[in-house]
Amino acid sequence: MHKLKRYEKLADEIAALIRSGILAPNQRVPSVRLACRNYDVSPATVFKAYYLLEDRGLIQARARSGYYVREHARGSLAEPKMSKRETAVQEVDVSELVFSVLGSLKDPHTVPFGSAFPSADAFPLARLAKSMGQGLRALSPHQIIADQTAGNDPLKRQIALRYTLAGVMLPMDELVITNGAMEALNLCLQAVTAPGDLVAIEAPAFYACLQVLERLKLKAVEIPVHPRDGIDLDGLADSLARLPIKACWFMSSFQNPMGASLTAERKQRLIELVHQHQVPLIEDDVYSELYFDSQPPRPLKSHDRDGLVMHCGSFSKSLAPGYRIGWVAGGRFAEKIAQLKLMTTISPSVPAQVAIADYLQHGGYDRHLRKLRHSLESQQQAMLAAAERYFPAETKVTRPHGGYFLWFEFPERVDSLTLFKVALAQGISLAPGPIFSASRSFRHCARLNYGHAWGEDSERAMALLGQVLAAF
Amino acid sequence: MHKLKRYEKLADEIAALIRSGILAPNQRVPSVRLACRNYDVSPATVFKAYYLLEDRGLIQARARSGYYVREHARGSLAEPKMSKRETAVQEVDVSELVFSVLGSLKDPHTVPFGSAFPSADAFPLARLAKSMGQGLRALSPHQIIADQTAGNDPLKRQIALRYTLAGVMLPMDELVITNGAMEALNLCLQAVTAPGDLVAIEAPAFYACLQVLERLKLKAVEIPVHPRDGIDLDGLADSLARLPIKACWFMSSFQNPMGASLTAERKQRLIELVHQHQVPLIEDDVYSELYFDSQPPRPLKSHDRDGLVMHCGSFSKSLAPGYRIGWVAGGRFAEKIAQLKLMTTISPSVPAQVAIADYLQHGGYDRHLRKLRHSLESQQQAMLAAAERYFPAETKVTRPHGGYFLWFEFPERVDSLTLFKVALAQGISLAPGPIFSASRSFRHCARLNYGHAWGEDSERAMALLGQVLAAF
Repeated sequence: MHKLKRYEKLADEIAALIRSGILAPNQRVPSVRLACRNYDVSPATVFKAYYLLEDRGLIQARARSGYYVREHARGSLAEPKMSKRETAVQEVDVSELVFSVLGSLKDPHTVPFGSAFPSADAFPLARLAKSMGQGLRALSPHQIIADQTAGNDPLKRQIALRYTLAGVMLPMDELVITNGAMEALNLCLQAVTAPGDLVAIEAPAFYACLQVLERLKLKAVEIPVHPRDGIDLDGLADSLARLPIKACWFMSSFQNPMGASLTAERKQRLIELVHQHQVPLIEDDVYSELYFDSQPPRPLKSHDRDGLVMHCGSFSKSLAPGYRIGWVAGGRFAEKIAQLKLMTTISPSVPAQVAIADYLQHGGYDRHLRKLRHSLESQQQAMLAAAERYFPAETKVTRPHGGYFLWFEFPERVDSLTLFKVALAQGISLAPGPIFSASRSFRHCARLNYGHAWGEDSERAMALLGQVLAAF
Repeated sequence: MHKLKRYEKLADEIAALIRSGILAPNQRVPSVRLACRNYDVSPATVFKAYYLLEDRGLIQARARSGYYVREHARGSLAEPKMSKRETAVQEVDVSELVFSVLGSLKDPHTVPFGSAFPSADAFPLARLAKSMGQGLRALSPHQIIADQTAGNDPLKRQIALRYTLAGVMLPMDELVITNGAMEALNLCLQAVTAPGDLVAIEAPAFYACLQVLERLKLKAVEIPVHPRDGIDLDGLADSLARLPIKACWFMSSFQNPMGASLTAERKQRLIELVHQHQVPLIEDDVYSELYFDSQPPRPLKSHDRDGLVMHCGSFSKSLAPGYRIGWVAGGRFAEKIAQLKLMTTISPSVPAQVAIADYLQHGGYDRHLRKLRHSLESQQQAMLAAAERYFPAETKVTRPHGGYFLWFEFPERVDSLTLFKVALAQGISLAPGPIFSASRSFRHCARLNYGHAWGEDSERAMALLGQVLAAF
């Protein structure tokens, strides 16, 4: 695991001051001399920390006068509270609603705040295409057949290597390469449940999770999520004790839609809970590479000594949208998952696998990721700042340390499905709250995507949303 | 639809004489003069027919003495009878058996008679890689996101065009691009059934069909298959009248494993049956491009005026193994299928889609297919000839007009699971009969793959199999 350097730690501390609003926009950051004294570090360390913060889009140099906090969120909008507890087990029936919302997002001229994807402009598509060419040239006809059942070995090795760096030792045969994380999550759920079973999920949850439960005729036990700290562990403990829950499906880092992350201690406690009840846990961890702090979040999987965690990842959000390559480290369920995969799609595309394997070896993945993280972080700041300018003052909003979603809680009078329709008619999409809940809660909430370059269009769209919100 | 030319018709007639054994190996084919008189055609037509038969590996020229039938099957082995009728509805429980057989096929040094795939050497992989490069260069970042939900438009247009040539007019939005035909078949079945439902399938059936039924907790109604004429329509009519069958899953052309094809008339009658009972029909048509006659078989879909047929195709067997691109023309179920796909894998790989789209436009697909068909036909002849040389005289065998499988019915004393194990220990794989049946019938049968270049290894393997067979 990457050991945090002193200057990275300093940058994180100052970033936290900025994000919390203690350091306001246009305020001068501590001078180098002052910072050296306050933090007990060398001038070189302070300079490196400020260069990093400049890269991350949080501060900017002004000629002859030092570094200043950039225009960004003042932190004047409050944080939402933890979602309320739904004690009833929920039949899931949201698919039609989700499809009606998603179906309206296809227009390329819409401002894509409702999108589930970051902008594809942010990805090294040309370099990937080069890797595709190299990978295909090296691929023997025999291998293209063999990789269909076993998965591409070089790719599996690269993925296992990244696990090792993140502190998870993984036997390679625990890895199943899938058609994106979506297939991985589907297979995991099928491996450990039967129709009618109860599954613990988050509230709000990623809408596709709800759709999958509905499709597989599973019932949802919704566990509240705190917008910063993640899932309510007391609520989970209670549900696990009370109900015959057959599986958990959680996002431990940069949860979609709230952006919450559990601390390492809370992850440890969560794992103890599922160990105690011997409940398989599906960890949806597709945003883990999109962290803003200097240190990557560790997955729940890294705390699991019992093979109960199925850890699902993907390159779709971090490297290769549309290639549809994901994976699952399936723990004790790996063989079952591999068999289910053979029976449903046989294999993900072999060319896409070899392209990504070549890129991971030669393409400069970490360099690309640093750039991507810095863009996302500064776009988050821009969206937060715009929300403070244009949205009602009672609006509450999350401030995640990664990913590309903000979760807004508007005043109770706002109906986000109406907001969605009115905004769409004006060329702006958003993801209304009710699609994130089996109980169709969160009527006055919405998820907004900041994964696209921030520009005048985005600014205008936020102003327009502000006008619509004011009209409720 | 391709109108058959006179010389193609003549070639087919002579091919039929050869395949039936009326024209024996090393026998001289009619001289040009004689053929002109017998068939009432011009010498040019006869020459073109003979050139075509030479391309197809059925005859060869000898210096100064005309054309001779090549070494091939004499037709001395009989054709198997139609499979027996199982009237009981079958719970399906074959997955473990299938996996134990498939798992042992991975060794690249094994003679791959048990393989489900033709040799990847037979495919234009380098030309496809070029199309991949061209396709990726032309792909905009926006399109890579949009194609994930809608499928790649140029690819859909090319597929729709091939349907038109085959006599099926298809609105493009009836097409759903999938991760190979396997995903298409899974989605179709889920679109029209619920756990516990009855599904009519063939006996013997493609083993993956059985695995999918087992996974989805569906019950099998096994309909006998005639090794040449295909599914027993009287048996099907009876089952449809007697049982609440919710779906049919059939292969109408070059059925796996028997190689049987229904005639156009029988296809018409089958469609009338499913119309009469309003039962959705899943047409698994992945071998349709691998026909040996001059005319492509028309799909069941071409007879359907009611949107009941879901026609599943794939490029895995005809062009691009490992790319995992298939599709379904879903009839009235198309939208439901598209939604299920979004909930399970979202999308097949976009790069693989653009590569195939580019190849179909510029790569010379029809030229490649002609070459592939000729190789397969001559390899079939070689395997049939070897079977006659080495296998017990009571052996029965199919003589399909396409695909790359022969179905062998050995004397009753042969146990094909034992045969499988003994052969595998000697480096030869095969697909034993019981994996093709919910009732684990066909114990003395096996499917052999002739989709690889025929060589000394293949010849030796057939001789060795013959010895093992003799020992029973």
